[in-house]
Amino acid sequence: MTTPSRRDLANAIRFLAIDAVQAANSGHPGMPMGMADIAEVLWNDYLGHNPNNPKWFNRDRFVLSNGHGSMLQYALLHLSGYDLPIEQIRNFRQLGSLTPGHPENFVTPGVETTTGPLGQGFANAVGMALAEKLLAQRFNRPEFNIVDHRTWVFMGDGCMMEGISHEAASLAGTLGLGKLVAFWDDNHISIDGEVEGWFTDDTPARFEAYGWRVVRDVDGHDADAVKAAIDQAMAHDDKPVLICCRTTIGFGSPNKAGKESSHGAALGKDEVEATRKALGWDYGPFEIPQHIRDGWRAGNAGLVREEQWNRMFDQYAARHPALAEELVRRSHAELPEDFAAEADAYIAKLQADGPKVASRKASQMAIEAFAPHLPELIGGSADLAGSNLTLWSGSKTVVGDSPNANYIYFGVREFAMTAISNGLAVHGGFIPYDATFLVFSDYARNAVRMSALMGAHAIHVYTHDSIGLGEDGPTHQPVEHLASLRYIPGNDVWRPCDAVESAVCWRAAIERRDGPSCLVFSRQGLAHQPRSDAQVADIARGGYVLKDSNGAPELILIATGSEVDLAMQAAAQLGDKVRVVSMPSTDVFDRQPAEYREAVLPNACRKRVAIEAGVTDFWRKYVGLDGAVVGIDTFGASAPIEDLMPHFGFTVEHVVEAERSLK
Amino acid sequence: MTTPSRRDLANAIRFLAIDAVQAANSGHPGMPMGMADIAEVLWNDYLGHNPNNPKWFNRDRFVLSNGHGSMLQYALLHLSGYDLPIEQIRNFRQLGSLTPGHPENFVTPGVETTTGPLGQGFANAVGMALAEKLLAQRFNRPEFNIVDHRTWVFMGDGCMMEGISHEAASLAGTLGLGKLVAFWDDNHISIDGEVEGWFTDDTPARFEAYGWRVVRDVDGHDADAVKAAIDQAMAHDDKPVLICCRTTIGFGSPNKAGKESSHGAALGKDEVEATRKALGWDYGPFEIPQHIRDGWRAGNAGLVREEQWNRMFDQYAARHPALAEELVRRSHAELPEDFAAEADAYIAKLQADGPKVASRKASQMAIEAFAPHLPELIGGSADLAGSNLTLWSGSKTVVGDSPNANYIYFGVREFAMTAISNGLAVHGGFIPYDATFLVFSDYARNAVRMSALMGAHAIHVYTHDSIGLGEDGPTHQPVEHLASLRYIPGNDVWRPCDAVESAVCWRAAIERRDGPSCLVFSRQGLAHQPRSDAQVADIARGGYVLKDSNGAPELILIATGSEVDLAMQAAAQLGDKVRVVSMPSTDVFDRQPAEYREAVLPNACRKRVAIEAGVTDFWRKYVGLDGAVVGIDTFGASAPIEDLMPHFGFTVEHVVEAERSLK
Repeated sequence: MTTPSRRDLANAIRFLAIDAVQAANSGHPGMPMGMADIAEVLWNDYLGHNPNNPKWFNRDRFVLSNGHGSMLQYALLHLSGYDLPIEQIRNFRQLGSLTPGHPENFVTPGVETTTGPLGQGFANAVGMALAEKLLAQRFNRPEFNIVDHRTWVFMGDGCMMEGISHEAASLAGTLGLGKLVAFWDDNHISIDGEVEGWFTDDTPARFEAYGWRVVRDVDGHDADAVKAAIDQAMAHDDKPVLICCRTTIGFGSPNKAGKESSHGAALGKDEVEATRKALGWDYGPFEIPQHIRDGWRAGNAGLVREEQWNRMFDQYAARHPALAEELVRRSHAELPEDFAAEADAYIAKLQADGPKVASRKASQMAIEAFAPHLPELIGGSADLAGSNLTLWSGSKTVVGDSPNANYIYFGVREFAMTAISNGLAVHGGFIPYDATFLVFSDYARNAVRMSALMGAHAIHVYTHDSIGLGEDGPTHQPVEHLASLRYIPGNDVWRPCDAVESAVCWRAAIERRDGPSCLVFSRQGLAHQPRSDAQVADIARGGYVLKDSNGAPELILIATGSEVDLAMQAAAQLGDKVRVVSMPSTDVFDRQPAEYREAVLPNACRKRVAIEAGVTDFWRKYVGLDGAVVGIDTFGASAPIEDLMPHFGFTVEHVVEAERSLK
Repeated sequence: MTTPSRRDLANAIRFLAIDAVQAANSGHPGMPMGMADIAEVLWNDYLGHNPNNPKWFNRDRFVLSNGHGSMLQYALLHLSGYDLPIEQIRNFRQLGSLTPGHPENFVTPGVETTTGPLGQGFANAVGMALAEKLLAQRFNRPEFNIVDHRTWVFMGDGCMMEGISHEAASLAGTLGLGKLVAFWDDNHISIDGEVEGWFTDDTPARFEAYGWRVVRDVDGHDADAVKAAIDQAMAHDDKPVLICCRTTIGFGSPNKAGKESSHGAALGKDEVEATRKALGWDYGPFEIPQHIRDGWRAGNAGLVREEQWNRMFDQYAARHPALAEELVRRSHAELPEDFAAEADAYIAKLQADGPKVASRKASQMAIEAFAPHLPELIGGSADLAGSNLTLWSGSKTVVGDSPNANYIYFGVREFAMTAISNGLAVHGGFIPYDATFLVFSDYARNAVRMSALMGAHAIHVYTHDSIGLGEDGPTHQPVEHLASLRYIPGNDVWRPCDAVESAVCWRAAIERRDGPSCLVFSRQGLAHQPRSDAQVADIARGGYVLKDSNGAPELILIATGSEVDLAMQAAAQLGDKVRVVSMPSTDVFDRQPAEYREAVLPNACRKRVAIEAGVTDFWRKYVGLDGAVVGIDTFGASAPIEDLMPHFGFTVEHVVEAERSLK
């Protein structure tokens, strides 16, 4: 039995990728062929993981930011012994397989995050490395490095060109995330061809400007050079490290290596054969000979590593029982047992007290009420702490070596902030919240989408929620954003009308373990609404009757946020046959049983007016063709709120007029 | 009469800003106070412009990317003699004033682009500088530098932190935009305070890594130093230049200078008085003494400068009449006279030929048909030329000194690409198009919004428009994007169903001078639909009857794009009382007269089914509460299209079922 060379081991990756893409006639062979040698060294010699338990908490995190090269990751998982059998590789990119076109962490065991939208995997990795650093600061004790793992990320030229790479790298440098190691696949090729026509950055110099340690000019096809680079990266823990690997895309393909033609399409039957010959790979499609399989034995090493860690953790638990309990709880994403009761009490008190505050202030009050019970709550804002009101009395800045840091000054970096939140969430141990103005959710939008796709438990706080923000004008006034965020599948959007609804939506977001929430708050002060206990309980259903009609409703006013009080005022003028429905979350309301929805919005009552300072068409789903909507379908304007709201028709008179216009 | 010092001239800016913000009790005094000295030097000594004619084509472009400092720009415009009287300054941030919270180019004479969303003004400026370079290459002749102006842009730390600054600076460096000069307001302060906790980049080194020339360590309060830096910037034209100006935010305020408290709020009455004293400004609010007004006399210089240019242009027109005519036409945003007729002929021929192609291919055919008539059409893709099909036979790459370059390899930079398009559009002389996958419109979203807010004539091409793209999976499959883009006010979204509709939407986008269009195309092949001449003409109305019922319709199927043919097939099964409406653009359809809309969708017929491979709720505006929608409200999946479309219910059977479910 021959001992396989490192190149043989890497070629196993190459041919699994080549054959899977060829079988699917779809996919990206070039990157796996180019990065196989790097990946082989990293996974076999360095990666701390246990293929038998992909969820081992102290595993290293591996992120494929250039996610189109998904077959690289599937090949690594398969060869390392994860539960990803060869049939799944054969079914690459087929319906229901565990091997989708891009890596999806909710589908494939061992995939840490969902990548493909370029640059975001890198920002997720920054979040993971931050999670590791903060958990280590909180939980490690002398002799017990309970939290001690690295985050490794592969990036292509595409990731490097994306703006989010700037935001994420810059913050990682400032925060000194020394256990983050990025490999840049410097192959000089992107989809349009040789990058010299559109990408001429001195990338090593750029990363040094961010305060990274940079290992330059590594031959990505020389295992010894890669090993030396990784050793160099691991020699210090004070700065993140970029390893610049010069590689050949489609390495081994006689006619397509080094060309964009190998990037995003099957090599073709003849070229697959030619590549087999060129690399001396004498095996059939999807065939991995036993000696190569034996060469990939990370599984056993990982098992031993986790067993050692488990023994250490038992001793740690004996010595530091409270910390161990907290770590177990947080790593299982369980809330403290008393959280629900504390939340109930806080919400009941708010309803009784009836504070009249801006909902952004109510949001801060909710954080202040809940955060002391939740050491896992970590948050920050994109340079708008004083406007978003994301700081609370227990905020401790993430900088230096504070063992209880829970506040991140993200800087003006909305997109990376949100993707970093996703990274914190999928790492585990934290419930992250981030914040900016609602209009700038646009900057972060695809990361919000990725929160929802992954089912990441991240909370996105958006204040200054309408033209009601006033003087900053239309560049800062959201109009279409509420509707657009609600349309992201799996994303729960909340727009509360007062302090009580604000607390309920924070609670819902904290308790929602399997997906993100967008909490949308006003700049301006809001009235308090009276409610019975039953009404308070129904807020969590997303929509409920806030003021009922005398008998069956003849008119239903539906409103959210700052417009709920307007609806209440209009109802007072419109007589006692009017019902007012407060609808803080259409997403949550739509998930309620049909009977509940019918009870709130009886089908028989078609005289309906929806009121929201946003685009009107969204509300047709509740008011139909025969109802009316008081909203705004143009951009706003720069003026004080007192002038703006009447100018755009947010007045009792206008709501009454809208009602009169109905048949 | 004393001659005012440079500092006196700058203080006029400072106090207009201070007093206006104080009067409004809203706004950002710190930046204008910090950058006043730089602005004074630039505007008085260098800026080529004519306050009497803000639209003079060969003016220098000035962009305030840190747009919250809008009062800096308003003060400059007022003092330089633009038609922005002191009453407008007094009415800063009031309803209907010409001085909104952030600079808006559609409101204020002399404002080149709309800024406030950080980083985008900088990317707009890159687009403007590119426009200048390309127009100069095309139109300049020996002795006639007809197009010869610079683009100056002010940036703050916020712009620098945003990812778009990376994308835009990187591309500007690669393209060698030597007449672009950026001033970095390096004041060490952002909203959350001293930036050292979240922004520690070596920014000069970063820009050098992009291939920029960097002028370091300029004292932004020393006019001579600023002058020397600008002279240095203008000494070469081969690279863009970053001038790093060390400034003090809130300069002159005894208690708030250098502090974040001066950034985003009025100084307060006492501090305004203290600042008057500290700077020796003995004038009342909004009072500018005559000798200072006299010191600001750029208006006359500009008039002379434009007169000289006009004389040169007359000689140029005599010597190069065709070029002069083209430049005049393009600078007036007029299409060639024969464009409409050519488009008619092309569309008629397509309808007769009936090609069955993917609409992305049909898009390329439309470009191929129209572009030879439109030297102003300039386009590109974010590294997806071969997928978006944005190249045509006459494409000439923007690189080096080609006099007819019309194709930009944007690299993987969706956000900057779109903002650069906006810059090309508002500069004038070009109709830009950009392209990426529809799902990655997310990355560019706020720039699309800015296109719409500005009414910029930019065309955004988005291919791979639904789950129909297949194997790349949910990270690449748009679901909510069509609806979300339609909700941006003023944005025209088109999703054509075949080659004919594709050509019509390209034509509409080209002819729409006052706003952007998003053209959304399929990856997969689409059937050709038969049409009468009248139906072909009605495509431009956004929605029309593609197949009518026998007598009044008892059922209306409404569909877009790839689902139109599905609707046609379902209609064939559902009998002859069924009308099929093709609705390529809901935005355009909604602007049609009520009679037309009623003729297409008669109110009496409430049995309606909408079909679109996107979120269903959007379609409630047409089908109401009683209709049905065949769509997709979850994320997609990775699989071949043949498996995906049935899996998600896009089949004739499912449409028929949906019809049966209606009362």
